[in-house]
Amino acid sequence: MSPPPIWLMRQAGRYLPEYRAVREVAGGFLNLCYDPEKAADVTLQPLRRFGFDAAILFSDILVIPHALGQDVTFEAGEGPRLEPIRDADGLGKLSMDNLHQSLGPIYETVKRVSADLPDGAALIGFAGAPWTVATYIVEGSGSRDYPNAKAWALGNPDGFQVLVDMLVNATTEYLLRQVAAGAEALQLFDTWAGVLPKYAFDRFSAEPIREIARRIKAEYPDIPIIAFPRGANLYLPEMAKAPEIDAIGIDYAVDPVWAAREIQPHATVQGNFDPILLLAGGDQLERRAVEIVEALSGGPHVFNLGHGILPQTPLEHVERLVKAVRG
Amino acid sequence: MSPPPIWLMRQAGRYLPEYRAVREVAGGFLNLCYDPEKAADVTLQPLRRFGFDAAILFSDILVIPHALGQDVTFEAGEGPRLEPIRDADGLGKLSMDNLHQSLGPIYETVKRVSADLPDGAALIGFAGAPWTVATYIVEGSGSRDYPNAKAWALGNPDGFQVLVDMLVNATTEYLLRQVAAGAEALQLFDTWAGVLPKYAFDRFSAEPIREIARRIKAEYPDIPIIAFPRGANLYLPEMAKAPEIDAIGIDYAVDPVWAAREIQPHATVQGNFDPILLLAGGDQLERRAVEIVEALSGGPHVFNLGHGILPQTPLEHVERLVKAVRG
Repeated sequence: MSPPPIWLMRQAGRYLPEYRAVREVAGGFLNLCYDPEKAADVTLQPLRRFGFDAAILFSDILVIPHALGQDVTFEAGEGPRLEPIRDADGLGKLSMDNLHQSLGPIYETVKRVSADLPDGAALIGFAGAPWTVATYIVEGSGSRDYPNAKAWALGNPDGFQVLVDMLVNATTEYLLRQVAAGAEALQLFDTWAGVLPKYAFDRFSAEPIREIARRIKAEYPDIPIIAFPRGANLYLPEMAKAPEIDAIGIDYAVDPVWAAREIQPHATVQGNFDPILLLAGGDQLERRAVEIVEALSGGPHVFNLGHGILPQTPLEHVERLVKAVRG
Repeated sequence: MSPPPIWLMRQAGRYLPEYRAVREVAGGFLNLCYDPEKAADVTLQPLRRFGFDAAILFSDILVIPHALGQDVTFEAGEGPRLEPIRDADGLGKLSMDNLHQSLGPIYETVKRVSADLPDGAALIGFAGAPWTVATYIVEGSGSRDYPNAKAWALGNPDGFQVLVDMLVNATTEYLLRQVAAGAEALQLFDTWAGVLPKYAFDRFSAEPIREIARRIKAEYPDIPIIAFPRGANLYLPEMAKAPEIDAIGIDYAVDPVWAAREIQPHATVQGNFDPILLLAGGDQLERRAVEIVEALSGGPHVFNLGHGILPQTPLEHVERLVKAVRG
């Protein structure tokens, strides 16, 4: 059997010395996202070093709130800070008027990567899913329990829907332009999908992802859409059955044997090696990588991590992982 | 149909003015846990105010590492701080020698609560499950990704097993004494069970919980054991089928309709109202509470939250919830 394709979430990142070198001279993190030359360079760095089968656009999910007019900054070592928006009045500050102007440099990055992509590699575009982007818009930062976003979504669902609809529109526009610029597949990251009760997951995670996918397929019927509603593991089979969803990202907590049975009949499975094991190394690294490859060998599988690669990860562990997967 | 019994996780806590009054004069948080008179008082406060059907011992999961000899402190507003233990050498600092001496005041609290319990109410004892307690022992604090605990557990499982075995022993001893002092049911909280790959969940979350339950049932065959492996939702049916597990706690992300079908045939279901909705109020409060009651009405159900009650929760929202559940 031929090995699955492999790429790693956050493969263009701080564990790479060549990334740190570019990052150092780029100014702030958002500056790097909006600098097509440097962003294209860091997007391609991990392919040059490890020969991964896919490049994923180097960008951030918070370029969407930024393009909608929200103040977004990244403080070193502290993560993002946004001017929080917590009610209908606050939504008045957001506007689609400058969307493409703000996101233009990112489309240019996609074009450059597409032109320089190694033979046989695919270029994946991406965006944050509306629920996860909304949590940042509402909380103003990363959060453990999302009290404000959840209180709004659960307590006043019709009011919260206005924000989600706005994000569906903006995200669709953004992704359509990525495809026009050369993206060959699209991933929607719903990192905080797992914190919603089922009724709210259906309305604010699954349905917006599906709506974006449907609108993109109306223009580009053949573009594969990868949904990664992290932590919403009970509801992955239902999402896999949606005709507009082609692949499902699975996090490290998902049993690959279960995923082979419940997801692979309906969608490609992407995941789910634990990035902590890639950091730790030891003989478990190869053992668990091979376990995942074997569990998912009976259907379509893209090898990946179950969460982003950690900045302290040794390069030689990544090399060992690629070797273990390719056999 | 008769309404389900109801109690709320962290029902003895900061949302109650009478709790805050005791807390203020108790000195540090651990002092309150080790003061039988005050701890018994705060344990019973929510029953006096709301007439809940169960009292849960007021204590903390970190009394176990403390009793094993680890330095544990609680800084106001910062959560717990422990002197982290990250390898086999560090384990040498832990010892069972003073376990019961350190935990003695807690057994005394259980006795007092048991003597003063309102008619018809049950007294639930509890402990942290080994995996979750181990994350605190290893990280030295709360953590988002548990990098050190997971690196040890996944990278060197046999070494990590030594710590888990120690916690199984200590926790069993602790819970047996709680039963001897008057606890009528026991809950094991595995708050971070959801961050483990399946093979590690089986070994370090499910099996230790089951082993503790088996040892307790060897002495007290009729004591109900409630397991709450939070976030490990795909694996709840398997745990529900374990003969030594009587009830399963479900968090807010679990669809109660799914739980009725997959868990209730094997175990009582406890949960899963979202504490954010109890904070937010509005007409969704009653609607979603009734939805849970109805979904789980065909089998054994204990109404509860899907996570601990939040400190800012208004008292009148709790009153509304109790009324909605009792009809």
